[in-house]
Amino acid sequence: MPASSPWRQHQLNQPHHDGSALYVDSTNLSLGDRVPVRLRLPDDYGQTSVWLRVSHDGDPLKIEAKLDRHGAGETWFTAEMPIDNPLVSYRWLIEHPGGYRWLTGRGVFDRDVSDIGDFRTSTYGAAPAWAKASVGYQIFPDRFAASGHEHGTLPAWAVPAQWDDEPHPPGMASTTQYFGGDLDGIRKHLDHLDRLGVNLIYLTPFFPAQSVHRYNADRFDMVDPLLGGDAALASLIAAAHDRGIRVIGDLTTNHTGESHQWFQQALADRSSDQASYYYWSDSVDIDFERWSQAVNGSLNPGRQVFNGHPVNYVSWLGVPSLPKLNWGSPALAEAMLTGPASVTGRYLNQPFNMDGWRVDVAHMTGRFATDDYYQLVARAMRATVDQSAGLLVGEHFYDLYNDLTGDGWMSVMNYASFIKPVWSWLAPHDSALRFADLPLPIPRRTGGSVVATMRDFDGSVPWKVFSRQWNMLGSHDTARIASIIGDRGLTEIAAVWLMTYPGIPAIFAGDEGGAVGLSGEASRSTMPWNQIDAGGGERWQQDVFTRYQQLIRLRRSQDALQDGSLRWVLVADDVLAYLRQTADQSILVLLARSAWPGVILPGWLCPSGQPELLYGGQLVDTPAIQVDRQHVTIGATSGPAVAVWQL
Amino acid sequence: MPASSPWRQHQLNQPHHDGSALYVDSTNLSLGDRVPVRLRLPDDYGQTSVWLRVSHDGDPLKIEAKLDRHGAGETWFTAEMPIDNPLVSYRWLIEHPGGYRWLTGRGVFDRDVSDIGDFRTSTYGAAPAWAKASVGYQIFPDRFAASGHEHGTLPAWAVPAQWDDEPHPPGMASTTQYFGGDLDGIRKHLDHLDRLGVNLIYLTPFFPAQSVHRYNADRFDMVDPLLGGDAALASLIAAAHDRGIRVIGDLTTNHTGESHQWFQQALADRSSDQASYYYWSDSVDIDFERWSQAVNGSLNPGRQVFNGHPVNYVSWLGVPSLPKLNWGSPALAEAMLTGPASVTGRYLNQPFNMDGWRVDVAHMTGRFATDDYYQLVARAMRATVDQSAGLLVGEHFYDLYNDLTGDGWMSVMNYASFIKPVWSWLAPHDSALRFADLPLPIPRRTGGSVVATMRDFDGSVPWKVFSRQWNMLGSHDTARIASIIGDRGLTEIAAVWLMTYPGIPAIFAGDEGGAVGLSGEASRSTMPWNQIDAGGGERWQQDVFTRYQQLIRLRRSQDALQDGSLRWVLVADDVLAYLRQTADQSILVLLARSAWPGVILPGWLCPSGQPELLYGGQLVDTPAIQVDRQHVTIGATSGPAVAVWQL
Repeated sequence: MPASSPWRQHQLNQPHHDGSALYVDSTNLSLGDRVPVRLRLPDDYGQTSVWLRVSHDGDPLKIEAKLDRHGAGETWFTAEMPIDNPLVSYRWLIEHPGGYRWLTGRGVFDRDVSDIGDFRTSTYGAAPAWAKASVGYQIFPDRFAASGHEHGTLPAWAVPAQWDDEPHPPGMASTTQYFGGDLDGIRKHLDHLDRLGVNLIYLTPFFPAQSVHRYNADRFDMVDPLLGGDAALASLIAAAHDRGIRVIGDLTTNHTGESHQWFQQALADRSSDQASYYYWSDSVDIDFERWSQAVNGSLNPGRQVFNGHPVNYVSWLGVPSLPKLNWGSPALAEAMLTGPASVTGRYLNQPFNMDGWRVDVAHMTGRFATDDYYQLVARAMRATVDQSAGLLVGEHFYDLYNDLTGDGWMSVMNYASFIKPVWSWLAPHDSALRFADLPLPIPRRTGGSVVATMRDFDGSVPWKVFSRQWNMLGSHDTARIASIIGDRGLTEIAAVWLMTYPGIPAIFAGDEGGAVGLSGEASRSTMPWNQIDAGGGERWQQDVFTRYQQLIRLRRSQDALQDGSLRWVLVADDVLAYLRQTADQSILVLLARSAWPGVILPGWLCPSGQPELLYGGQLVDTPAIQVDRQHVTIGATSGPAVAVWQL
Repeated sequence: MPASSPWRQHQLNQPHHDGSALYVDSTNLSLGDRVPVRLRLPDDYGQTSVWLRVSHDGDPLKIEAKLDRHGAGETWFTAEMPIDNPLVSYRWLIEHPGGYRWLTGRGVFDRDVSDIGDFRTSTYGAAPAWAKASVGYQIFPDRFAASGHEHGTLPAWAVPAQWDDEPHPPGMASTTQYFGGDLDGIRKHLDHLDRLGVNLIYLTPFFPAQSVHRYNADRFDMVDPLLGGDAALASLIAAAHDRGIRVIGDLTTNHTGESHQWFQQALADRSSDQASYYYWSDSVDIDFERWSQAVNGSLNPGRQVFNGHPVNYVSWLGVPSLPKLNWGSPALAEAMLTGPASVTGRYLNQPFNMDGWRVDVAHMTGRFATDDYYQLVARAMRATVDQSAGLLVGEHFYDLYNDLTGDGWMSVMNYASFIKPVWSWLAPHDSALRFADLPLPIPRRTGGSVVATMRDFDGSVPWKVFSRQWNMLGSHDTARIASIIGDRGLTEIAAVWLMTYPGIPAIFAGDEGGAVGLSGEASRSTMPWNQIDAGGGERWQQDVFTRYQQLIRLRRSQDALQDGSLRWVLVADDVLAYLRQTADQSILVLLARSAWPGVILPGWLCPSGQPELLYGGQLVDTPAIQVDRQHVTIGATSGPAVAVWQL
């Protein structure tokens, strides 16, 4: 048992604001609107006056906030925020005896801070309403389920594997190891998804391609016959829709395969539209020789014979089989993005009626040398997706400040501010595993570090985007969460975090049974249907599945978990706790990665006096909770612990 | 005397990189270059491997750094950085037993941080070479010196004042209080500038206008006759050039006066080019009524009769006398920015040969509602200024991340990361004065706070921009530094900071004699020439002038102060110290705002073993320095202190 007495330090003594409905209604803003924004402060905070600073044509206005009401132990202030530009930055200025303080998206500062951490809101639309209650489920089609249907001759590149083989580790062989999963296989196993409780399938690419991952598409105008073709996709989506399950696809806007019909047409006919879709050494204002020498090691351009003479072309990170798309071509935009006949539009309409797209390598899309068409591509694709009330999620690991303002992608796969922080808090000290984008092992960080990292990346992301971020514990590009964390109890904590945090929680198929895998490639394991049907086995842990079921049911039944504000209550080395709140509901989530002495929080936190345990630890402890008028006391635990209480 | 023993804590035990020539030669980069970048680490830092992370088409490459050499107590690593895009972000990844660390423009982090603090470099050109050795001197023409020459009838708005009157505090009367300074007056006092040692005049606007500040111009095609007209400006610049003094002007790209000939022409003729220069309620896609209600309180648009019917127009922060320019008009760009016949070009060429421009309200320029022409304006103006090898400095207080990448303004007036931090460190605890843009008094912050603020704003500013930032202790828009700080000794410390820090140090005329003023308006005081000529008086402190002379001489004679790297050595509540280093020279600057116990630094810092005091405190202490092989020992002081040593 921990020896010390319960903590009395917590973050409820700090001012709080976030972009959720409790503080500002930003779902549907128009230019010229004035919208009330609210700030809450502890009664004893000591402020003398409160101001809202809000951007206006590049200059910040200062608007004095008015006292709104005294709550239980807290005071609320309100200011009227003008929406003068499509993207608005704001922060709070709090006059204080020790010198003014700022509250930005990154927290409270008793010094001046630059604007890049400011809260932001916008006049841009949000993700479709249905995304709010979504729980995602990522399927890598070759590895999920094989229907047994005949799909013709296997292509030359495919090296058939047995269903229960292990996926190859990184290397060329991993991309040709063919397990034969197909779309009918998915359709036949929708029951599994129903049982689990997920309601949004994300399918990695289904286009004909020269690999099992299909990110090197041969064409975009049909579904791979190996997967069952167009008809199988339409059937899958129809069957999913019958169950209330939505489906999004995966499109590469950054590159195609070198065998893509566009690229081949371009090679055959220099005057074709398709030739304008790519970057060629004889048509761009770049010294290609110098370029290829300059770009680090492997990043050489591809080389092809073009109209009888050799030319270089730009390829993704120098992989010659992936020629990069040139978004300076209006014909490409039309073919790929614009309107119902485009690639984007084709699958969102009859007969498919797909519900949106995930976009591969979104962060590099349209970016090459002096070109930067990123925003144009994202906005054009968004316009088409919006016509179908679809969802549009980008792949992005890096600088969200300019790239995730919400006018293009509705959100991104949240590697930077969810997966990496969670891993860094729960991975062992001596992990040998690496995060996909770094050459070094995953470090173990403190709670303070990982929350600071999350706020660092999230601070400037508008709430309507942040609250729909595609949060995961792993994907087809990372090791499996069970392998990363190792400890089964700590993996339970990760699952609770995922299902109680703002965003669209998403599971990589197999994680719900405890799948393992030491790398992005090795994690692309098949679903062990025999063991699943038998209720367990070496590759299937039924207790993990049951926990995910419970947590997904919790997520889908609680409005506060879907749309509530996010307020950090405890941020300590080994313990994290946050509130998810709506006007009607408060849920407190506590995560402890090791033993801790408990905490005493102010009693106003639980006005009902009757906290209800919505989820308690199964492999880890559940702390006790006691409420009286003065205090909410959470008890010590002798090891890792988790709890979700309704207050 | 301070009781405790000398500190042994300092920042020399941290890895260091900045964009200066010691670490990377970024003055002249082209797309496709590979440039070596260097990192220095203390020998006992414990790193195992070092990587450079650098952006490439939106994705970061990881490039392993190689051990370059062991120096005295330090190890240098080098990596080859590819320049694949015009603007390149980079950071260092340091493998470390406790988990990897990042070094970004904001410092060292033992957690993941977002990209917006990364170092940045670019292929964009730098400020002209002559800017390196420049020391600026800001002149508000009405208040500097009156030649006594006749300039015709006084305009109706002008309310003549006596030369020794105090300037009015904020309010309408301040803009019409006419003292009668003129350009010939400046020319006649160039001796004063020579004696002081400054070599770059920044003139606030010289255009005909309806106020003494002239930011509400009537026209841009002539110099105000009240100031002596075109001939006086040409004479002033020629005389200044004869002394090796350069001159830049001040242009409002955000707005004109309502009496501007363009605005009047627009009102007279709706089909004129000039009508396209402004925003009118009947020609923009904005509900002006809603707009004017939405924008905070005073921010109502102006209203004019236009072709016989009333229309609203957009004005700067709702001040109707300042109609905002609409940069969607190509005709405006041509008239104002493009080529030698434009307003920008006219004054940079014969007969004026002016050396560049400061741009008023640069941060709002081109920004209105859904419009954002900011970058286009800045780049177009830059192209014209570059043709004359001129300097282009913007006014900007806020978000530098997108707005100061170096392709437009070469640098900005450094309110955010120089004036405010310096003020916040040296102002008294109970200051009642306010910084121009905030409704609250200046707080007193710790050294750690103000350095964090500086790095927060500067971190992502490319070195070639950062090292030419227009640093000031005050301007015509702020209270005077002597009034802000109050204490004369601490004001000496501020002056030392200004003259030893990276950037173009600039003095607001009068500060060199200890001028006072409690607000931006009240600080626009006249130069007390009688007292200056007499060597002192109530409004002129000769010892302040002598100190500025010495400090400017120091600045202009030491390459390391002009172009050396910036490495923080001490960042404590009451003491700051930094190194300015080139390959040949190390200068250590120490600033203490109160008594402190001294510090023991590693001996390798001063390989010569013979530090030379380049500047010691005159109103404050100078600490002792002692060097042996093992240590550089800086002694305690019993009060505020300052020292500049060559090591």
